[in-house]
Amino acid sequence: MEEKCGVVGVSVSPDNESSPDVAHQMYYALYALQHRGQESTGIAVYDGTTIHSIKGMGLVPEVYIKDDLDNLSGNVGIGHVRYSTTGDSRIENCQPFVVNYKNGCIALAHNGNLTNGQELRDELESEGHIFVTESDTEVIVHLLVKKLLTYDTIESLKKVMERLEGSYSLTVMIDSMLIAIRDPFGFKPLCIGEVDGGYVVASESVAIDTLNGKLIRDVEPGEIVVFRNGDIESYRSTEQKKISHCVFEYIYFARPDSIIDGQLVYRVREKIGRELAKEHPVEADIVSPVPDSGITSAVGYADTSSIKYSEGLMKNRYIGRTFILPGQSMRETAVRLKMNTISQNISGKKIILIDDSIVRGTTSKRIINMIRGAGAKEVHARIGSPPIIAPCYMGINMATREELVASDRKISEIEELIDADSLGYLSIEGLIRAIGIDKNKLCLGCLTGVYPLKIHSEECES
Amino acid sequence: MEEKCGVVGVSVSPDNESSPDVAHQMYYALYALQHRGQESTGIAVYDGTTIHSIKGMGLVPEVYIKDDLDNLSGNVGIGHVRYSTTGDSRIENCQPFVVNYKNGCIALAHNGNLTNGQELRDELESEGHIFVTESDTEVIVHLLVKKLLTYDTIESLKKVMERLEGSYSLTVMIDSMLIAIRDPFGFKPLCIGEVDGGYVVASESVAIDTLNGKLIRDVEPGEIVVFRNGDIESYRSTEQKKISHCVFEYIYFARPDSIIDGQLVYRVREKIGRELAKEHPVEADIVSPVPDSGITSAVGYADTSSIKYSEGLMKNRYIGRTFILPGQSMRETAVRLKMNTISQNISGKKIILIDDSIVRGTTSKRIINMIRGAGAKEVHARIGSPPIIAPCYMGINMATREELVASDRKISEIEELIDADSLGYLSIEGLIRAIGIDKNKLCLGCLTGVYPLKIHSEECES
Amino acid sequence: MEEKCGVVGVSVSPDNESSPDVAHQMYYALYALQHRGQESTGIAVYDGTTIHSIKGMGLVPEVYIKDDLDNLSGNVGIGHVRYSTTGDSRIENCQPFVVNYKNGCIALAHNGNLTNGQELRDELESEGHIFVTESDTEVIVHLLVKKLLTYDTIESLKKVMERLEGSYSLTVMIDSMLIAIRDPFGFKPLCIGEVDGGYVVASESVAIDTLNGKLIRDVEPGEIVVFRNGDIESYRSTEQKKISHCVFEYIYFARPDSIIDGQLVYRVREKIGRELAKEHPVEADIVSPVPDSGITSAVGYADTSSIKYSEGLMKNRYIGRTFILPGQSMRETAVRLKMNTISQNISGKKIILIDDSIVRGTTSKRIINMIRGAGAKEVHARIGSPPIIAPCYMGINMATREELVASDRKISEIEELIDADSLGYLSIEGLIRAIGIDKNKLCLGCLTGVYPLKIHSEECES
Amino acid sequence: MEEKCGVVGVSVSPDNESSPDVAHQMYYALYALQHRGQESTGIAVYDGTTIHSIKGMGLVPEVYIKDDLDNLSGNVGIGHVRYSTTGDSRIENCQPFVVNYKNGCIALAHNGNLTNGQELRDELESEGHIFVTESDTEVIVHLLVKKLLTYDTIESLKKVMERLEGSYSLTVMIDSMLIAIRDPFGFKPLCIGEVDGGYVVASESVAIDTLNGKLIRDVEPGEIVVFRNGDIESYRSTEQKKISHCVFEYIYFARPDSIIDGQLVYRVREKIGRELAKEHPVEADIVSPVPDSGITSAVGYADTSSIKYSEGLMKNRYIGRTFILPGQSMRETAVRLKMNTISQNISGKKIILIDDSIVRGTTSKRIINMIRGAGAKEVHARIGSPPIIAPCYMGINMATREELVASDRKISEIEELIDADSLGYLSIEGLIRAIGIDKNKLCLGCLTGVYPLKIHSEECES
Repeated sequence: MEEKCGVVGVSVSPDNESSPDVAHQMYYALYALQHRGQESTGIAVYDGTTIHSIKGMGLVPEVYIKDDLDNLSGNVGIGHVRYSTTGDSRIENCQPFVVNYKNGCIALAHNGNLTNGQELRDELESEGHIFVTESDTEVIVHLLVKKLLTYDTIESLKKVMERLEGSYSLTVMIDSMLIAIRDPFGFKPLCIGEVDGGYVVASESVAIDTLNGKLIRDVEPGEIVVFRNGDIESYRSTEQKKISHCVFEYIYFARPDSIIDGQLVYRVREKIGRELAKEHPVEADIVSPVPDSGITSAVGYADTSSIKYSEGLMKNRYIGRTFILPGQSMRETAVRLKMNTISQNISGKKIILIDDSIVRGTTSKRIINMIRGAGAKEVHARIGSPPIIAPCYMGINMATREELVASDRKISEIEELIDADSLGYLSIEGLIRAIGIDKNKLCLGCLTGVYPLKIHSEECES
Repeated sequence: MEEKCGVVGVSVSPDNESSPDVAHQMYYALYALQHRGQESTGIAVYDGTTIHSIKGMGLVPEVYIKDDLDNLSGNVGIGHVRYSTTGDSRIENCQPFVVNYKNGCIALAHNGNLTNGQELRDELESEGHIFVTESDTEVIVHLLVKKLLTYDTIESLKKVMERLEGSYSLTVMIDSMLIAIRDPFGFKPLCIGEVDGGYVVASESVAIDTLNGKLIRDVEPGEIVVFRNGDIESYRSTEQKKISHCVFEYIYFARPDSIIDGQLVYRVREKIGRELAKEHPVEADIVSPVPDSGITSAVGYADTSSIKYSEGLMKNRYIGRTFILPGQSMRETAVRLKMNTISQNISGKKIILIDDSIVRGTTSKRIINMIRGAGAKEVHARIGSPPIIAPCYMGINMATREELVASDRKISEIEELIDADSLGYLSIEGLIRAIGIDKNKLCLGCLTGVYPLKIHSEECES
Repeated sequence: MEEKCGVVGVSVSPDNESSPDVAHQMYYALYALQHRGQESTGIAVYDGTTIHSIKGMGLVPEVYIKDDLDNLSGNVGIGHVRYSTTGDSRIENCQPFVVNYKNGCIALAHNGNLTNGQELRDELESEGHIFVTESDTEVIVHLLVKKLLTYDTIESLKKVMERLEGSYSLTVMIDSMLIAIRDPFGFKPLCIGEVDGGYVVASESVAIDTLNGKLIRDVEPGEIVVFRNGDIESYRSTEQKKISHCVFEYIYFARPDSIIDGQLVYRVREKIGRELAKEHPVEADIVSPVPDSGITSAVGYADTSSIKYSEGLMKNRYIGRTFILPGQSMRETAVRLKMNTISQNISGKKIILIDDSIVRGTTSKRIINMIRGAGAKEVHARIGSPPIIAPCYMGINMATREELVASDRKISEIEELIDADSLGYLSIEGLIRAIGIDKNKLCLGCLTGVYPLKIHSEECES
Repeated sequence: MEEKCGVVGVSVSPDNESSPDVAHQMYYALYALQHRGQESTGIAVYDGTTIHSIKGMGLVPEVYIKDDLDNLSGNVGIGHVRYSTTGDSRIENCQPFVVNYKNGCIALAHNGNLTNGQELRDELESEGHIFVTESDTEVIVHLLVKKLLTYDTIESLKKVMERLEGSYSLTVMIDSMLIAIRDPFGFKPLCIGEVDGGYVVASESVAIDTLNGKLIRDVEPGEIVVFRNGDIESYRSTEQKKISHCVFEYIYFARPDSIIDGQLVYRVREKIGRELAKEHPVEADIVSPVPDSGITSAVGYADTSSIKYSEGLMKNRYIGRTFILPGQSMRETAVRLKMNTISQNISGKKIILIDDSIVRGTTSKRIINMIRGAGAKEVHARIGSPPIIAPCYMGINMATREELVASDRKISEIEELIDADSLGYLSIEGLIRAIGIDKNKLCLGCLTGVYPLKIHSEECES
C-alpha cells in the first residue's frame, strides 16, 4: 500500500496562554500541504485525557467546519493529507490512525511506503492481531503498542524502527507527547519549525511558513524527535543506513517554495533548466513550459540559453475533481478544458517545450500534438529529469515497469512516440548538480533500477 | 445592479446527427469562462417546445450533474456564469432568466451593467410590470416581450436596444432562435466561433477553443447576430455610438489565452511589461510578479530590461471559497496561506515587483511588507495600468471613488502608503500602445473620469 | 395547475416587544401543516422595508436552518407547504411568490386551483405579461398588481376576486399588511387564531394550536380579512356564491385534530364509522382499520356495531420519501415495508376492514389480498365515503375519470375487483349527517358529478 | 457501552439464480427494524473473497444509495441499526464491525450490552490489543479472532461465549458463513426465517415478514446457529443460564406486529390493557392512549372496562430528528408540535389515560397538564408496566437510579408529582399473565432490582 501524503504535528506549551489553537494551526498547515494529497484528510488532538479526531474524504476546506475545529481543544495534535490511489478510497483508510491501548491513546500519521508491510501484517495476524484498514499505518501502530507494553517510549520506537523497511516519515502522538520520526534512509522529507508558543513538524517547510514560523532544521534520517513539556529531545535509531533522499520531491512533487534537506526546490528546478540548456541546446524561437510544474525550469533554460521565455500553454485554474467524464466525442474537449494553447505565441515558431518528467508518454504526445495543431514549426521536448526506467517502491506512485515508456525504449524511440522534433532528457549527473546534494545521499532507484534497500526481484546498492 | 459575468450560446443544426450535445458543450464553455464568475451558473436549452433550465449557486462542476445535463436535450441553448457581488447572492438572481410569454418562451443571459436600469424598471413598474429579481436582465426581458407583441423579432430587438443605456453583451434564445447582441459602445467582449455542426457565441474566445472550435470574429458593437436553421444573419442597431472597449479586460479580467477585439490578451500584457520597463526603468536584481495576474507583464518587463525574471511569491493553488475565517491572531496566517514568499529568491535583493493594478492599496502594502520581511533590500512597484481615479459604471465592480487609493492621492503619496521604494504606473499612452487599439475606440473612464456616455454627476466625452 | 397545499400568515404588533419571532412561529405553523404538502415550502417576512424569503424543496425541518430563520426579522409574514404533483417539481414553483412592483412588494401563498387559470394567463400574456412559473399564484399576483396601480388595496382585492374562478384560500402580504382571502364558495379551509401579541391565519386550526393560540373563527367564504396595526378588518367580496365546502377535507385530507368550518374532523370520522355500521352491518369477529386514515372511523364502527376493534395491519412509521425503487422481484417486499399484517389478529377471522375511500382500487385489492394471505376467513370492506365517480377540479388531485374505479362500475363489480367478500360505501346522506353541515353548503362534485361552478364539459348545479 | 439496536443476517444459496440480492434484502430488513435504532446503520456483504461494507450516520433510507447497494454483490451479509446514546455518536462506532485477520475476514453486529465489557477490554489491552472504537462489538471480535487462531469456528464461538457476560444477540459473518448467536439468558430477541432461496436472521420477526419470509423459530438462549451451503446447523453454548427474556421488549421496545419468543407483542399489549382494567378500574367517560405506544393497551382497557375508547391526543407524524431547538418562549410550542390535544374529545370529561411506562415522570406530567388545559375534568393515569425501580444493565438505556421517579417514591407521591387524579401501575403478576411466559424465564431486573446475573453493587437472583 503506497502512500504519497503529507504529515504535520504541532506542540505548544500549555502555560502559553496566548498560543493559537493547535487545531486551527494544523488546519492551516494541512492547507499548505494540500498538494501532497487531495483524497482525504484528518486531524487528531489530545485534550489532556483522550484523543479527539476529525476525518473526512475531500479537500481540507471541505472536511473541516469551523465549529468542529473550535471544539477540538488541546496543546498537541497531528494531521494528515492523503493522496488518492485506486481501490482504497474509503473513510476507514483516512489518517491519522487513532487507537486506545492499555496505557492510553495513540495517533499516528504516515508518509511513505513500507516494503515489508505485508510481511509485518502477516506476522501480526499470525499472532492474533486484527486489522480494520489496508494501510501500513495500522501495522506500525500494532508494532508500537506491542513494544510499549514492555519497553519505555523511546526504546519502543527504536524497536519498531528496527522492524520497518521502506520509507516512513511519521508524526506520532502518544498521549501528550508529539514525536517526529524519519526512516534511516531519509527518503521522504520531514522538517521542524518554531512557531509562536511551540513547535511544528511538517513534510515541507511551506507549512511552517504558513504558520509564520521559522524553519529550524530537517529531521535527520533515523532520528526520533520528541516534543514534550516545551522541550525538544533527539534520539537516534539503532539502524544505520545509506542516506537516500528522494529526487522526485525536487523534480516534481514538492512545492517550489519549500526547502528540503537544505535545498530550495525552486532553485533546484531553475538549475535543472540551466543544466538542460547546457546539455541539450537547440536553436529555437521560444522556451515554453508545460504549466505548472515546468515553469521554473523553463525560466532557467530561457535565461541560460538566451532564448525568449513565452507561454504557449495556458492552464484553466478552475479544473477540479468533480469533472464530468465526457462521452467519446467530447474527449478532446476535456483535454482542452484543462490546458489551452495560445496560438499567437506558437504559430510558425520553433518551440522548446519544458516538462518535468515523462511517465507513460501519453500526456506528452497529446500536448505536443496540441502545440503542432496551433501552428508550431518545430517542437523540441526538454525533460527536467532523466528517463524513469524502473518503478518506485518508496511511495511515489508512478506506474508499473510495463507502463513506464522509458523502461524498455531508446530515447529516439520515445522521441518518435511522443512526436517531438527532438527530445532531450536531463542526465543523472546534471540532476545531481542541480539538486546540490552528494550523489551518495540520493535515492535514484527509479532512474537507475538500483535501490538503496532490498526489493524483491530488484537490484540493490548494498 | 452591476454584473461582471460570462455568457455563452450554442446553436447546432438539427439535421446534424453527429453533433455533440448542446448542454454538454455549454457545460464545457462555461467551465472555460469560470474566471468571469464563480457565484452561480445556469444553462437553458430549448427542446423544440419549451425551455428547460438548470441553475445553481456555486462553481460549474458543482452545479451540473451529469444525469441532469444528459436530460437537457435540444439544438440551441444559452448559459451564464455570475460574479459574486454583495447583497444579491440569491438563487433567484441566477441567470439565464427564463420566461413564458404570449408567443412562446425566452431565455436571456447578460454581461454588463445598464446605467439606466433603475429608470427602466421604474417606468415598467408604472405600467404594471412586476419583478421577481433585482437584475437588469429581467428589465431587458420585460422590454423585449413588450416589443415582441407588436413588432417582429429583429425590429423588437432594435427597439429594445434604443432604450438600453450602458454595457450589455447578451445571449438570447427566443424559441429555437439564438441571438447574440453587443451594445453599440462594444464595452464588453462577445465573439462568434464555429464548432462541429454549428455555432457558438461566448464572452471570450477560450470558450470556443475549449470546444475545438474556430474563432470567426467578434460581434461588432451595436450588432445583432441571429443563428437560425444553420445560418448566421447580421443586423445593426439603429443606435450609433463611439466604440469604447473596456481596457480592464486586457489589464486584468480576461484570460491571457483569449483574443478580444483582435488582440491576444497575453500579448497585451507582455507589451504592458515592456512599456513599463521603458517608462519606469530602475536598477534591480530581479523582476518578480504578483501571481497570477502579474506574471506575463513581469516576463515582458524582464525581457526588455534584461533584468533576471525570478519568482519571489508563490501562490497556493488550493485556496478555495470555503476558507474558514480566522480569529484575530490568525489573520496573517490566512494571508500566508494564499501567498508565500521564497526567501532565497528575495533576501538581500533589489526587487522589481510587477502587479496588474492597484485598487485600494491595502493588498499591495501587505505584499510589499511580506517581501521586505523575507529580506528584500529594495522593493520597486511597477503597475501594469495607469492610476484608477474614478469608478466604473459599466460593470467592473472595483470600488467607490472614496475607496480608490488613487482618486485623491499623488503617486508619491501612494508610494509611501504602500511602503514601496519607488512606484511606477503605466501611462495611458503606454497602455494604449500595449493594447494596440485606437485610443478613440477604448473606454478609459476609470483612468480619466471621462465616460463615453452620460453618467449622472460624471463628465461625459460627447 | 392544481394545488393541494397549506398556507399560513402571522401578524404581530410591532410594539409588543415580547412577541415571539414571526419567522419561528411560521416555522412551527408549517410543521403542523406538513401533511398538506411535503414537496417544498417557503416563508416570506416583511422587515419594514422589503420582503425576504427562504424557500426550498423538501420537508419543513430540511428546508429551514435555524441561523437563516433567526435572520428573518419582521412583524408580518406568510408561509406555504406544497404538495407534489407530477411535472412541476421545480424550485421556481415553490411558494410564496414574491415580487416587487411600483408601490412596494407583495408575497402571496395559495391553496386551491383556478378553473380559469389558463384563460387568465392567456389574457395577461396578450397584454404583454410574462411568467416565470407554471402556477396560478403568479397569475393572481399579476392581476393584483394591475389593480393596485388604479385602485386602493381592498378595492383591488375585490376586483381580483371577481376575475378568479375555482378554489383559493390565500394569504397575502402587501408591504406590512397581512390579508387572508377565501373564495366565495369556501372550498378550501382557512381560519383565524389569536396568538401571543398578534394573529395567525392558517389552512387548519392545528397550526393555531401548535402556537398555543386560540381559534377565533373561520374566514368566511368570499371574505377578505385584513390585519394591520394590530387590528382585524373584514371586507366582503362583491361575488356571492353558493357555499361549497370540500367534503374530502373531512374524509381524508385534514388532520383529525383540526376544526374546519365548525366541525372537528375527528368527530366527523368517528360518525362516519357509526353511519357505516348502521348502513352496512355485517356479522364479523373484528373491525380493523387501514392505518392511519381509517382508524377513527373503525373505532366508531366498532362502538356502534359492538364488534371488537382490533388492528390487523401495522404501518411502518419510518417510511419516508427517499425510498429506493425495487426491482421486479422486490415489489411485494416494498408493499410489506409500508404495511405489515398481524396474522394472529386476522387468522381464521371474519374482518370488517375500514378505509377512508377508494380511488383506483389497486391499493384496496393489494391490502385485502395481504389480509387473506394472513389467514382471514372473510374480508368485508367498509368505505368511509360514497363512491368517487368524477374528478375534482378544485384542487384535490385524485385521478382522471378513467382512473377512478367507481366512475363506470357498479358496486358489485368493484367488490369483485378488489376481492372483498362484501363492499359497503357510505351513502351521501350518511356522509352529510356525519359532517353535520347543511347539504347545500358542501361541494359533492366528485361524488355526484355535479359541480357548484361551471367546469367545461361537466354538469353544473346552478 | 450499552446498545439498544437491531441486527439482521441473510444467507442465500449461491446456486439459486432467482434469489433476490442479499444487499437489497438487508436494506428492507433494516428498514423494518428502524424503530430499534435511528442513529446509524451498516451493511456488510461477503463477495466470495472479501467483505465490502456501507455504513453511515442517519436513517436507513438516508444512508443507502441504490447504486451503492447494487454494487454490493454476494450471497451472505449482515446488517445493523444503532440507537443513539450520548457521547459515542461517531462514524467509527457504526456497526457491523469488519476486520481482516489471519485466516480471512469477519463482520459482527451486536444487540445487547456486556456487563464485563470493560474487564474484557482491559484484559485484551494488557495482552497488547488495541481498540479503535468504544464498542463491545470490537471486544467480541478480538476475543473471537484469538480463539480462531487455535480452535475451529464452532469451538471458538463457544469459548468466546464462555467469556461474555451480559446480553448479546449477534449476527456474525466469517467469510461465507453466517452465524446467529443469542446469549444463554436469552435477554434480547433473535429469530430465524425462511425466505426465497435462503434464510434470514433478525432481531424481530417483522423483518422476516417484510421479506415475505416465514418465521421458523427463535434462536434459543445459548444457541449458535450456523448457515452454510444452504444448510442450518445448531450448536449449544457450554454455558447454561436461567432464561431471562427482557419484559420491556413487550412493554415498549418491539413493534406490535413482531412475535418474540412465541408471543405476539400486540396481543401482550392488549392483555396488559385488560389486566390494568381489572387491577385499576375507575369510573370515567373515555379511555385514551398516549400515542403511539399506549394505543393497543388502551384498546384492551376500553374493551374490558366497557368504557368508550376515544383519542384525546394526536401525534404529528412528521416530527423528525432535524428539529430546531426553540428559544425559551417557544418551548411549549415545541411540545405541541409533537402532540396536540383534541379538546372536544376531552373537555368536561373524566379521562383514563393509558401510557406504556413512566421513567422520569416529566413527560407524564406535561401530557397530563396539556389534557387538563384542554378541559378534562379528571385524569386517571394507568401505566402498562409495574414501577421501574432499578436501572437496566442489559441494554435498555433507561436512566440512572436517581433519575427513575419510582426508585424512591411511593405511588401516591408519583401520583401527586405527575398531577394525576389517580395513578395505577400494572402489577408484576399482571404483567407476567399478559406476556404469557413463565415468570422464571423473564428478566424483571428493572422492576425488582434483582438481576439474573451478577452486577456489581446490585442483588442477584442466583
